[in-house]
Amino acid sequence: MHANLRAVTPPATSDATTPQFSFSAGPAALPAPVRERIRDEFGDFAGTGRPVLELPFSGPEFRDVMARAERDLRTLLTVPDDHAVLFLQGGASAQFGLLPQNLGTGPAGADYVDTGYWSRKTIAEAARVTHVGVAATGADHIPDATTWRVRPDAAYLHVTTNETADGLAFHDTPVHPSHVPLVADMSSDFLTRPIDVADWGVIYASAQKNIGPAGLTVVLVRRDLLGRAHRSVPAVFDYTRQDEAGSRFNTPPTFAIYVAGLVLEWLLSHGGVAAMALANRRKSAAVYDAIDDSDGFYRCGIRADCRSHVNVCFRIADEALTDRFVASAREEGLLDLAGHSRVGGLRASLYNAVPEAAATALAAFMRGFQRRHG
Amino acid sequence: MHANLRAVTPPATSDATTPQFSFSAGPAALPAPVRERIRDEFGDFAGTGRPVLELPFSGPEFRDVMARAERDLRTLLTVPDDHAVLFLQGGASAQFGLLPQNLGTGPAGADYVDTGYWSRKTIAEAARVTHVGVAATGADHIPDATTWRVRPDAAYLHVTTNETADGLAFHDTPVHPSHVPLVADMSSDFLTRPIDVADWGVIYASAQKNIGPAGLTVVLVRRDLLGRAHRSVPAVFDYTRQDEAGSRFNTPPTFAIYVAGLVLEWLLSHGGVAAMALANRRKSAAVYDAIDDSDGFYRCGIRADCRSHVNVCFRIADEALTDRFVASAREEGLLDLAGHSRVGGLRASLYNAVPEAAATALAAFMRGFQRRHG
Repeated sequence: MHANLRAVTPPATSDATTPQFSFSAGPAALPAPVRERIRDEFGDFAGTGRPVLELPFSGPEFRDVMARAERDLRTLLTVPDDHAVLFLQGGASAQFGLLPQNLGTGPAGADYVDTGYWSRKTIAEAARVTHVGVAATGADHIPDATTWRVRPDAAYLHVTTNETADGLAFHDTPVHPSHVPLVADMSSDFLTRPIDVADWGVIYASAQKNIGPAGLTVVLVRRDLLGRAHRSVPAVFDYTRQDEAGSRFNTPPTFAIYVAGLVLEWLLSHGGVAAMALANRRKSAAVYDAIDDSDGFYRCGIRADCRSHVNVCFRIADEALTDRFVASAREEGLLDLAGHSRVGGLRASLYNAVPEAAATALAAFMRGFQRRHG
Repeated sequence: MHANLRAVTPPATSDATTPQFSFSAGPAALPAPVRERIRDEFGDFAGTGRPVLELPFSGPEFRDVMARAERDLRTLLTVPDDHAVLFLQGGASAQFGLLPQNLGTGPAGADYVDTGYWSRKTIAEAARVTHVGVAATGADHIPDATTWRVRPDAAYLHVTTNETADGLAFHDTPVHPSHVPLVADMSSDFLTRPIDVADWGVIYASAQKNIGPAGLTVVLVRRDLLGRAHRSVPAVFDYTRQDEAGSRFNTPPTFAIYVAGLVLEWLLSHGGVAAMALANRRKSAAVYDAIDDSDGFYRCGIRADCRSHVNVCFRIADEALTDRFVASAREEGLLDLAGHSRVGGLRASLYNAVPEAAATALAAFMRGFQRRHG
């Protein structure tokens, strides 16, 4: 499936025969064919004689880029017609506070499930503008949804389906005992697995993990949740206005949308999200196996059934070895393995564009590092 | 000065010997050397072995890109140390409502000068979140600043220094009779002329005219205006937090910042904003001369001393000829000359990257079109 993916050329500082793999949590690696196509088309996009970067956003060429990106996204995730697809500026963090303002939370506010670093960031931002109830808290696992305390009058129930910094993930849509609309930050697992979009009131995702360049957020919103925005929502972030304007209420991030379109096309031609899910399971299993086989040299604090398939977060029992691990891996072309700065430890991000060879190489490196330092 | 600028290659539909020039209001043309450098560096940025698009935003390579962009911007505009330079996500329209929320307008609200389409958009957005006083209104000229009704307790006084859709511009900092901080939307004239940043409390500008790709806004804010944000401002758009975080509170639009850095470097090596101002005057004079010499065939409604040097807006007296003008110009490689969709007429955007040859070619085309249709 990843036959078209090639390792990028090594940096001057490493052995020229060593391939180089990025495990960056974001901005993440792009599929190699996408990278090549951007370069090939850079001087002349689709016979226009100019780069896509320079196309007017309201002209026919760029409108076509946007239309194709939306169509391909709808195909990949079987997005129902009653969900709008929005391409908004900025990252998912901008949505943390804009989401409750868009959904017009009343006095009851909204309920959130706290499963890690990004959940708590989201909750803190939402709490600046609405009342937040914490329906459940989990550190090493997802609490059973039947135990969640969801208030019947909550405007929505928010989950972070993949905790990028902690490595904990929902693998299925939670079945909770209420009719409150489900809302998800899917920044790091969007397009990495099949989902049933109809289960969700709102899904939002930063582009810079599995979609494209930083500075773009994709929002899927069920249209019956539109028309509720508070006055404080800037018009350019108002889901309703942007739905009416085809995400062209103002100048959209045109280059990021173009790259996203190429990534979506690549996904379609490589088996779609089902194939990605299988590959991501295999990639993450290679790394988790190296952890679980290490007799405690490496440790992953997340319960096995809740482990992320795209962000493998782990620690070395002897924390003093962490920096050496990152530096040695880098020397072998395995880049960006340090954990989130506020969480520490180690993290291998294995997004769609990371080839299986990268995960295999990392697992081999981990076993070798343990032999040398265990 | 524009010796390094080359016309882009013509599209398949036009005569291969005709150069092609973009007059797009934005996303606008990039300087040709910048475009070439992006392509050259695309596969391997600065020996990293990967595209800048894929670099982690908190790593040393990208931090260096941001630091150089800020340093070059400070050099180009002699930005004083007590002004923060922020690289924010999104476009200037996002700031329309976020600005009053950032500056914590009290019950008096803020005063705005209305000089055209974009002023009115700004006022409408601000009025959603604060009380707005209109200090002055001008349609074909800038009212004398001594006549402005600025309330002494207004939180700030906002002007749009260049009306992109109407072609009206402030050529100097307005000297108004109050101590209320001046705030400017400089989206279309930022970096096109020298300014004294110390005159301004806040300057904000979308990137996609003279700075780089859409999806980035540069904000210069005097630090004594920080620390006043309303709770409804998303943290990622909070000037104070982003100043503290070096614009890396969340993932910044890394590729757009990289391209902006290349444009800033190009500006420095081409005489800076003083040279740009002279060139923009010459370019716009060529087009205004074609209008003023036309015996009323072409009309520009803006008073001569208030005409923009970067967006020349005009009409054909016989409006029925407008579409033919746009189509004929396009056939001759002169692109994107239709006026703003809500304003109509014609518009030639002559931003920094538009070469003098483009303005000369447009003026010649205008004279020829008049001969054929006058």
